[in-house]
Amino acid sequence: MKTETNERRLNRENTADKIREAIGAEQIQLASELFLELHLGDQVGVFNLLDEDERGRLLSQLDISATAHLFSHQDDSETLDAAENLSIERLADVLDEMQPDEAADLLGDLPPKQAFEVLEQMEDTEDVLPLLKYADETAGGRMTTAFISMRQETTSEEAINLLREVSPGDEAPYYLFVTEADMKLAGVVQLRELVVAGRDTKMGEIMDAEVIAIAADADQEDVARVMKRYDLSALPVVDDDNHLVGVITHDDILDVLTEEATEDIYRLANVADAQLEPASAVGEHLKGRLPWLYLNTLTALFASWVISHFEGLISQIAVLAVFQSIVAGQGGNAASQNVALVVRGLALGNIPRGGVRKILVRQAIVGLVQGIAIGVVVGIGVALWRENAALGIVLGLALVANMVMAGIIGTLIPLGLKALGQDPALASSVLVTAVTDSFGFFIFLSLATIFMKNLM
Amino acid sequence: MKTETNERRLNRENTADKIREAIGAEQIQLASELFLELHLGDQVGVFNLLDEDERGRLLSQLDISATAHLFSHQDDSETLDAAENLSIERLADVLDEMQPDEAADLLGDLPPKQAFEVLEQMEDTEDVLPLLKYADETAGGRMTTAFISMRQETTSEEAINLLREVSPGDEAPYYLFVTEADMKLAGVVQLRELVVAGRDTKMGEIMDAEVIAIAADADQEDVARVMKRYDLSALPVVDDDNHLVGVITHDDILDVLTEEATEDIYRLANVADAQLEPASAVGEHLKGRLPWLYLNTLTALFASWVISHFEGLISQIAVLAVFQSIVAGQGGNAASQNVALVVRGLALGNIPRGGVRKILVRQAIVGLVQGIAIGVVVGIGVALWRENAALGIVLGLALVANMVMAGIIGTLIPLGLKALGQDPALASSVLVTAVTDSFGFFIFLSLATIFMKNLM
Repeated sequence: MKTETNERRLNRENTADKIREAIGAEQIQLASELFLELHLGDQVGVFNLLDEDERGRLLSQLDISATAHLFSHQDDSETLDAAENLSIERLADVLDEMQPDEAADLLGDLPPKQAFEVLEQMEDTEDVLPLLKYADETAGGRMTTAFISMRQETTSEEAINLLREVSPGDEAPYYLFVTEADMKLAGVVQLRELVVAGRDTKMGEIMDAEVIAIAADADQEDVARVMKRYDLSALPVVDDDNHLVGVITHDDILDVLTEEATEDIYRLANVADAQLEPASAVGEHLKGRLPWLYLNTLTALFASWVISHFEGLISQIAVLAVFQSIVAGQGGNAASQNVALVVRGLALGNIPRGGVRKILVRQAIVGLVQGIAIGVVVGIGVALWRENAALGIVLGLALVANMVMAGIIGTLIPLGLKALGQDPALASSVLVTAVTDSFGFFIFLSLATIFMKNLM
Repeated sequence: MKTETNERRLNRENTADKIREAIGAEQIQLASELFLELHLGDQVGVFNLLDEDERGRLLSQLDISATAHLFSHQDDSETLDAAENLSIERLADVLDEMQPDEAADLLGDLPPKQAFEVLEQMEDTEDVLPLLKYADETAGGRMTTAFISMRQETTSEEAINLLREVSPGDEAPYYLFVTEADMKLAGVVQLRELVVAGRDTKMGEIMDAEVIAIAADADQEDVARVMKRYDLSALPVVDDDNHLVGVITHDDILDVLTEEATEDIYRLANVADAQLEPASAVGEHLKGRLPWLYLNTLTALFASWVISHFEGLISQIAVLAVFQSIVAGQGGNAASQNVALVVRGLALGNIPRGGVRKILVRQAIVGLVQGIAIGVVVGIGVALWRENAALGIVLGLALVANMVMAGIIGTLIPLGLKALGQDPALASSVLVTAVTDSFGFFIFLSLATIFMKNLM
């Protein structure tokens, strides 16, 4: 009995240290023994604590099935790194041992030439090949072809015997699917129904014909949404003619939810590569981050161009330069609140189609109230600090205007991107900041021009 | 057979329209019939499409079990709104019908006085009361007490008979837990093992004694991590003496992952209330968002105070006001990339304890390279635009310096908050922006002071 505590975590770090030591002393055999003594679920964690060289040494000593387990449970990018260092023959053996869906994922990530060579060496490609045609992030790309299907006439006893024969692996079936002769999906039987049914009960009698299925080309986000909505632990995948082609299990959905959340969090912060980690190589960071910084720079230069029209004014009233950034910045902060709310609302399916106008009006009001709340405090504070009432008034008014703009644009841009079929998380931040920055500087400096005499 | 497509989504919206119409025509009976014809999983979606008044009217007509299902599957905040409008007696009946863990969640959210009144009216509080002592976001708060446990001597046939008797509800057991006489956890039997075992096989023979469990006071994020790590569809929860007190099932974990991701996405964007939606009431928006905007305003005023020391310089060289925001802004953008990477890395457990220094050095290098990449382009561009080489050089150098600062501070602050036991997602954005803004303005205007003669 093990309770996940800091102790367990420390244990993993201790074992990693011991393995590292053993490898350092060239005792690779000992290292692999220490590794194999770990619970399967801990092996991944410990492996990740090793550096690339140590991982390679350890892998050279592990048997095929331990390697297959490791590859199935690691992050894609780390599996890929490790796989590329194995020989073609060894990698083929490992892939033969993996679940078809995991094997297909890895094959799809390999360089095509290596993938073909490995496929040629594999013993059993029958289950894997049909999966390769589906894109990674679709239902087809996530499903496994190793599912159990029965006919309506199958009795409970026959079904149990069949289960005994196949002795399913990690991806245990909690449902059995019932199909017609041509593999058209007819219904679903829950494993617990099978357990309590009489021996002669036919599947057709206990199956639920109202089975929820998903199309093979559906996006993985839709898969997660459906499984969550209907509380399913497995979801059948069908082709255009309603033939059962695969099954998605609950553990895949945990991965999907985690990946999608990472993608959204990264994209909202202008990081385009969802595989990036703080410790990734410098080159990978540059690839995933620099292009978006350049894009942001362009919009910042546009804002500078806006300011440049007021240079004469600023040289007369330099204090404007001290406070202009507050207007732009607070508009940006308010707008990024809106973007986060809308992007998350869209991801969770919380935004009804007919509700856009209502949301837009509400967010404009929120912007107005937040603008007044911030504008009054900042306006009075700055008026007192600089002993300049006009400055406080101009600053306060500009804040109100830019916060209303933030409420509208921060809602409209992600919704618009979604309507255009784009990912709202990806470009919203850049576009929204471009507007709140430029408009913020423009409105503040324009108001200052109007009240110029009072400001000096 | 139903495939989740746009069609299905449209169907929900159409039914919602029909129900709305029926309610408008005072045909509440018809409305409730239309509602009950829906698949259980669709009822929540349709209910959410109605407005508050319509929801109340519909609820008044729904039977206890339909209401219980709805409450179990809705978001917490929406369930709470609906529950507060029910009579105490009716709410007690609904809670009696709900799973104990869902009922306890709702009771915990109610105003204490109402909760006590409802508890008094409930028929069966035995399963619910022990759950109320656990905080919402812990293993204890997430677990259900409606699990099945057996003894080591129980035979497969007896176990199946027991399963038949209890006919488990929505939260089906895929595992059966084996306990000692005093409820100490001894092992776990998978349902599929039970299916294929002989009738006389004892649970003690087929159970896995290496069962992973979690402490009742563990954080729900740890629960999700453990279930993901070990691919579990149910996780037993134990007290300090290893007594089995509850079970967490896979559908709870989908909720946990979704909630935690929402919380992180919101907090990174300065939204403190994870229940907030774009359509929430204005007052709720202000409560969850305005305090953080005020905090941001304070840091922005600090940055203004920094700039104010250079007012004399700006009045002589107004062009500085045109470009100062680029330095601050791009530093902020780069730092928010780092914050997102570190916050997500911490949430996913991807940052090993010993790896902090390595990550810090790497991110400083990334900052340096990104700074040079942006600094050179912007420097040359602005030098040509303004025909002022010194301006380009000052701007480029300031960008490099602030981007290095962004790399260091954007990594250090979330890691530091975590080390202090704080949520790194919550305050990182504000603190990091405070630094990149103030330092950005300071370094740019200081360099400008040094090169003042060349700039004029």
